[in-house]
Amino acid sequence: MHQLFATRASRMKASEIRELLKLLDQPGIISFAGGIPDPTLFPADSFAQAFQQALGPQLQAQALQYSVSEGYMPLRQWIAEHMCQIGVECRADDVLITSGSQQALDYLGKLFLSPGDTALVGWPTYLGALAAFNAYEPRFDRLRTNGNAGAAEYGTEAGEGAIKFAYLSPDFANPTGETVDLRGREALLDLAQDLGCAIIEDGAYQALRYDGDAIPPVLALELARKGDLQACRTIYCGSFSKTLSPGLRVGWVVAAKPIISQLVLMKQAADLHSATINQMAVHQVAQACFDTHIPKVRDTYRARRDAMLAALDQHMPDGVSWTRPEGGMFIWLTLPPGSDGAQLLACALDTVKVAFVPGQAFHPDGSGTNTIRLSFSNSDEATIAEGIRRLGQILGT
Amino acid sequence: MHQLFATRASRMKASEIRELLKLLDQPGIISFAGGIPDPTLFPADSFAQAFQQALGPQLQAQALQYSVSEGYMPLRQWIAEHMCQIGVECRADDVLITSGSQQALDYLGKLFLSPGDTALVGWPTYLGALAAFNAYEPRFDRLRTNGNAGAAEYGTEAGEGAIKFAYLSPDFANPTGETVDLRGREALLDLAQDLGCAIIEDGAYQALRYDGDAIPPVLALELARKGDLQACRTIYCGSFSKTLSPGLRVGWVVAAKPIISQLVLMKQAADLHSATINQMAVHQVAQACFDTHIPKVRDTYRARRDAMLAALDQHMPDGVSWTRPEGGMFIWLTLPPGSDGAQLLACALDTVKVAFVPGQAFHPDGSGTNTIRLSFSNSDEATIAEGIRRLGQILGT
Repeated sequence: MHQLFATRASRMKASEIRELLKLLDQPGIISFAGGIPDPTLFPADSFAQAFQQALGPQLQAQALQYSVSEGYMPLRQWIAEHMCQIGVECRADDVLITSGSQQALDYLGKLFLSPGDTALVGWPTYLGALAAFNAYEPRFDRLRTNGNAGAAEYGTEAGEGAIKFAYLSPDFANPTGETVDLRGREALLDLAQDLGCAIIEDGAYQALRYDGDAIPPVLALELARKGDLQACRTIYCGSFSKTLSPGLRVGWVVAAKPIISQLVLMKQAADLHSATINQMAVHQVAQACFDTHIPKVRDTYRARRDAMLAALDQHMPDGVSWTRPEGGMFIWLTLPPGSDGAQLLACALDTVKVAFVPGQAFHPDGSGTNTIRLSFSNSDEATIAEGIRRLGQILGT
Repeated sequence: MHQLFATRASRMKASEIRELLKLLDQPGIISFAGGIPDPTLFPADSFAQAFQQALGPQLQAQALQYSVSEGYMPLRQWIAEHMCQIGVECRADDVLITSGSQQALDYLGKLFLSPGDTALVGWPTYLGALAAFNAYEPRFDRLRTNGNAGAAEYGTEAGEGAIKFAYLSPDFANPTGETVDLRGREALLDLAQDLGCAIIEDGAYQALRYDGDAIPPVLALELARKGDLQACRTIYCGSFSKTLSPGLRVGWVVAAKPIISQLVLMKQAADLHSATINQMAVHQVAQACFDTHIPKVRDTYRARRDAMLAALDQHMPDGVSWTRPEGGMFIWLTLPPGSDGAQLLACALDTVKVAFVPGQAFHPDGSGTNTIRLSFSNSDEATIAEGIRRLGQILGT
């Protein structure tokens, strides 16, 4: 049958990393690989109450029935208020509910990318964004968010296809944990203006800041320039996956109306709507406890990040450097030139039973061989200290 | 921003019909338009129990966490057993969970269609299938399931693009309510073999047969020919939307491994996985009461279909004909030549407060002006009798 497949299928290959990760959750292995939330932090009791209420006599018919592609209005209203709180003035009409922000990335790839078009992404960037965009057969070009690339440079580099958008996760990005500073965000807006392209702002980790001052979202900065969401080229993708629960698959997009309208049509054609009951439950839980719950999540992850940074300081040999993220779930290690993260993983699994993700897969050009990603979100401090000690052991030899 | 959109966006336009339908659920209007299940038939208490169990101490961490793209294994096992019962021998590994069968149609369009490729569909066919496939910029050619088209005919007709698949809903199809008989199914298998294309079998209404004998799914007939699912070109899409609940968005695909593997990669890149907790709840409810629940659904809808057929016999003027479906949710009316279903709707809404869907939108070539779709699933018998009486009134004048 594969001879019948569309040309895009050849770009959708099984990731060796993902296949490998399936083997890692075995007892006895200390895993810094996953990048998933600690399930003990899910507000499970609140969700139990919320689902019970959604299935009570008043709401059950609505909860189990087809609903509109735009999403559940009370949740869209809650999200609009939340966005206002982080600096993005918008209304419920400007919000589309998606099945996680991953679906937003897929739909945005589908909306913008014809084969050969260019998407600007970081080197490295979120693996799932590359996978989502890849289905629409783009070229990738390098987005530098430290401000050293002007539009002129891309004019030459991009060549074949039109530059459709720049994708980035400005706060505590997966995989590096790095944050784009205010100046970098303003420079990105200038660049997008000059290139005439959209910006896809992935806010998946936005709520997970452990110290330092919050930096306004790129969309908030653009709003400050233009005064009207409808004039903005930035598309904000948010998610409840890192704050309340990833398993319910509830995320959102905030953007100008022409974008939202087109995404609504796309969603109608692609899966009709996200599960009604999940939207009701997330709304209920967000309303009841988002503001009290998030500080607990932050406190837990902050302590784990601190434990990992302390252990790295103590156990890493000379020549290894790493990021010091102000939030999120990840620390990014750069090993001495010539090192191979994939080989190190094989060795680490074999000799000291420690897992992580080699960094090469996050680079569209196949570079980054000497980098690795460590996640601190799903291990307690003692386990983190022990795992990093073991990692130092094999890196030091 | 629209100048940045991919070429496919121009094919994803707001459906006038769907926009119109938003206005129809007003009090005082008798609506045969929706095509949605009667919410009083949802097993809401069973779902309340199931969600409570999924959020209990044993399962909550799993229910709210990320999970695998293939779907929740116990549900895949239940579906495999269900498929065996309807004649399709398969195993859990052959099943992928999707967010409703609508998502399966989107992913299958994505898997097979490059721009200009040909999809064979009925004239008329399910509007949502056309919308899903349209995103991948195919040509549509006409599938005749009454057996009068051989491969040679398509060889000439298709011309520009390769024929990638034939799509059909063989049981009580939306919009016509018609069923493809055994001979038609065998002829379709011959045709697909000759054309070297896949078959997408949409089983959305398969469980809703009210009388007559079940006809084996196309995939079951192909399995009987070939003896091995892995050799089959038919891809079966199933759904719980018409049997248990559409709002939870749980459907499935059964197909040969190369198809399932590629769809799993696609799902991983597009939305990671369908909501874990919904899959758990559907599994629990299906296991507890599918076999006792479905007969109740059938009894209710059978009585409504009978009421609509009786009222049509009584009230329709000469020159109007209609299908007599053995199941499903729809009856398809053909009005005298020169009639216009859209004009009739405007008139019906205005003068007698009755709604339905004009048939033209279900035809990829814009034909079918003199057809309309009536749904009997969400109105009681008295309302159906009254609505059809009113419709007869304006058709008779």
